[in-house]
Amino acid sequence: MAEMIPHWLTKQADLAPDQTAIELTDGTTYTFLELKEKSQSFARKLRGLGVQKGSKVGILSGNHIDMVVAIHALTYLEAVAVMLNTRLTKQELNYQLNDAEVELVLAQNNGEELVAAIATFTEVRNVHEQQGELCTEINLDAGFTIIYTSGTTGFPKGVVHTYGNHWWSAVGSMLNLGLNKQDKWLGAVPMFHVSGLSILLRSVIYGIPVYMLETYDKNLFHEALMYKGVTIASVVTVMLKDLINQLGDDRYPDTLRCLLLGGGPAPEALLEEAKARQLPVFQSYGMTETSSQIVTLSPGKALAKIGSSGKPLFPARLKINAFPGEVGEILVKGPMVTNGYFNNDKATQKAIQDGWLATGDLGYIDQEGFLYVVDRRKDLIISGGENIYPTEIEKALTMLDGIREIGVVGKADEKWGEIPVAFVVADDPAVSADDISAFAGNHLAGYKIPKEIYFVDELPRNASNKLVRIKLQNYLIDNDFQSH
Amino acid sequence: MAEMIPHWLTKQADLAPDQTAIELTDGTTYTFLELKEKSQSFARKLRGLGVQKGSKVGILSGNHIDMVVAIHALTYLEAVAVMLNTRLTKQELNYQLNDAEVELVLAQNNGEELVAAIATFTEVRNVHEQQGELCTEINLDAGFTIIYTSGTTGFPKGVVHTYGNHWWSAVGSMLNLGLNKQDKWLGAVPMFHVSGLSILLRSVIYGIPVYMLETYDKNLFHEALMYKGVTIASVVTVMLKDLINQLGDDRYPDTLRCLLLGGGPAPEALLEEAKARQLPVFQSYGMTETSSQIVTLSPGKALAKIGSSGKPLFPARLKINAFPGEVGEILVKGPMVTNGYFNNDKATQKAIQDGWLATGDLGYIDQEGFLYVVDRRKDLIISGGENIYPTEIEKALTMLDGIREIGVVGKADEKWGEIPVAFVVADDPAVSADDISAFAGNHLAGYKIPKEIYFVDELPRNASNKLVRIKLQNYLIDNDFQSH
Repeated sequence: MAEMIPHWLTKQADLAPDQTAIELTDGTTYTFLELKEKSQSFARKLRGLGVQKGSKVGILSGNHIDMVVAIHALTYLEAVAVMLNTRLTKQELNYQLNDAEVELVLAQNNGEELVAAIATFTEVRNVHEQQGELCTEINLDAGFTIIYTSGTTGFPKGVVHTYGNHWWSAVGSMLNLGLNKQDKWLGAVPMFHVSGLSILLRSVIYGIPVYMLETYDKNLFHEALMYKGVTIASVVTVMLKDLINQLGDDRYPDTLRCLLLGGGPAPEALLEEAKARQLPVFQSYGMTETSSQIVTLSPGKALAKIGSSGKPLFPARLKINAFPGEVGEILVKGPMVTNGYFNNDKATQKAIQDGWLATGDLGYIDQEGFLYVVDRRKDLIISGGENIYPTEIEKALTMLDGIREIGVVGKADEKWGEIPVAFVVADDPAVSADDISAFAGNHLAGYKIPKEIYFVDELPRNASNKLVRIKLQNYLIDNDFQSH
Repeated sequence: MAEMIPHWLTKQADLAPDQTAIELTDGTTYTFLELKEKSQSFARKLRGLGVQKGSKVGILSGNHIDMVVAIHALTYLEAVAVMLNTRLTKQELNYQLNDAEVELVLAQNNGEELVAAIATFTEVRNVHEQQGELCTEINLDAGFTIIYTSGTTGFPKGVVHTYGNHWWSAVGSMLNLGLNKQDKWLGAVPMFHVSGLSILLRSVIYGIPVYMLETYDKNLFHEALMYKGVTIASVVTVMLKDLINQLGDDRYPDTLRCLLLGGGPAPEALLEEAKARQLPVFQSYGMTETSSQIVTLSPGKALAKIGSSGKPLFPARLKINAFPGEVGEILVKGPMVTNGYFNNDKATQKAIQDGWLATGDLGYIDQEGFLYVVDRRKDLIISGGENIYPTEIEKALTMLDGIREIGVVGKADEKWGEIPVAFVVADDPAVSADDISAFAGNHLAGYKIPKEIYFVDELPRNASNKLVRIKLQNYLIDNDFQSH
């Protein structure tokens, strides 16, 4: 039976109308009542533009109050929000818009033309409201958001999150972290990623404010932690490094109770340094498919189990496809795990069996049940919190005339964690690294452009002619190659 | 799709093995790991006695660690716990055992014979464990407990709670009260009632201890609040009165953050007194059908809205069958509301339509959305937190020879809130009040025995010959009658 709950924003606006929902760095705040009224008004305007139950609507925006309003507005119409990464190229965006059958894109700015109609937030606000009933209840089984993740094939797949996935993610996190009515969650990560989006939804479900940074800025981030009453912050490795540098010999207020660290494994040295400075870092493990963290190191164990991602959240389960204590593929299960990919049964069936999601990541569980992730999803590069699949870069760059084949791997990087580097076999000796970079810039988001390019005579392949990426990694370690 | 979560006790024993689950007044404590191991062992023994998935198993016990173990043991076998009120007579118990198709009763003591087989907790512990798989996941849609409530017809109805009903009740309460890892919940109310049972389940879901009183004792209760680190306590009116008396000019520690007041409306004078003494009383409204509180006055409003039961919990909805602001029947909806009564479609369909439970209680909602309950379920008497339906007493006593008819109503009482009083039309002038009390004592739980008995020539009836209870109430107010 479909589980129905009251519409969460309407509900929070009733329970805590005057409570702050969103706080911006310039001091502007919006209460839950204001957020509800803005969102309902925006919904009525979207209805005037033809948005209805089941419509797929793209959202292309950096962190902004208009984006928050647009997301909630779609819930009032039971439309689906397709969250678009603003760093993608036109070509990448169009792929996702086509695949998700997006009818309309709501954008912060007037940008290039895309395959779907575009309306800026401002344009929508100028539309007349069309009256009619707005949704009063949320069906937890209904689809709410689609967020693309590339995956090993290089074809991005749209992860569908139901309302229930997000709800259970919020409840699971609350059972782990507890909930104080004084909590304030710092959102400096992009809201188009599930990590940022989940902060917005927890805010509404818990009745606590989000302190929202429009873009990540290390000074603003530090100030937020130091002076703005933030109690919990979602961070990635690069942000943790920045804040340790900013902090100097100072200390954050004791009310800062959790730095929830996601976005890929963190170097142990960094975790040790955070520990030495008594920073409340909670390492976590999750992915778009799990609606953000699904495994988190709980407060009591944060120091004793450095390097571990912790235990699965209360509603979640974890297993390793290997003998006890040995390294194998990590599988997770729970009501925050997606039911699958949009219009892609094949990928869904490959990834999810009997409710268990095969993450492709490798890890082991210690004797006390703590997860250690030893290797990320097959070939995945995580650079500054952004996921990059080598295949996607390889496919794009192979289209450049004069290139025969190309292999991409991640290289460890002090600042970004990892950067993508490319090994190129050229047909035409006139093709330069600059040509490749320029071509990549036209087809790929900036963070996906290979930061180092090596020309090689051939790529290492196995008997089945598959690229052996581990050998490319070894080339980097052996340092036999000179970047061009 | 059925929502599956990890078995909650197994999960908590994994997340917090050394955390205290149950603390008794003699200082004995049980960790979550110990509680899990005891419960799993007990489950294997119960399997030896033939208990299996779907078995209906009665639990007849006061608050005791054995009772807690038995409840969790049944979850490991996916059996259903029929929670029996220890104050019921043999006749009342047998009605429930028959109706719920109970195969086996697990009892604290060897009592009278009942229509179902009985095994004491000690007897079960002497059984050999029967090996085999125990449940590792909980299906939230599956039935977990049956608790009887009398209702207006006088025939008790078995309210079926799914795991999901209890889960959502716990989550709804957490969203209202917040959750600190230092929380400790005082359970002095009977665990066979949903109010007490819900404390046990919240403990497991939240990972916090229950400080359990085996029976209510005002001194132990006061000491628990004063010295035992209790942060939240479930109370009924009579307990709140007691603790105000015990407190004298003293104050409870600031860590006591919530006295969750249920079990019927409280006198305003008492709430004012609690307010004057800065006791953190949270008035609430709920019933067996709603798996405990469903409407609660939240922290910020507890003082400003005295007399109100508050607003529906985050996952719940509320409406009044009347024009805005006017008094009408209270209806509630949400995933903590039962799907219905065991083997009683007629009663279920009468009570629940489109997910809305018609409570029978009357109330109104003020302009800010706060509920005020003005009259309880048709004719319901609440005495010391126990629900009493007059019809049940009337049916039982009319069986006494020499009695023609009988009408029962509640009378306000300083100590118990209300007491049942009977108006009797006798055929045989030799029948005395003592005869009636003695007969009642043989057929009804002690709290249901009329505390005052009035002989009258006839009962007030309307044109359809239905008893007009309000007129009996008026007799009491007019004080025309002398108790026998």
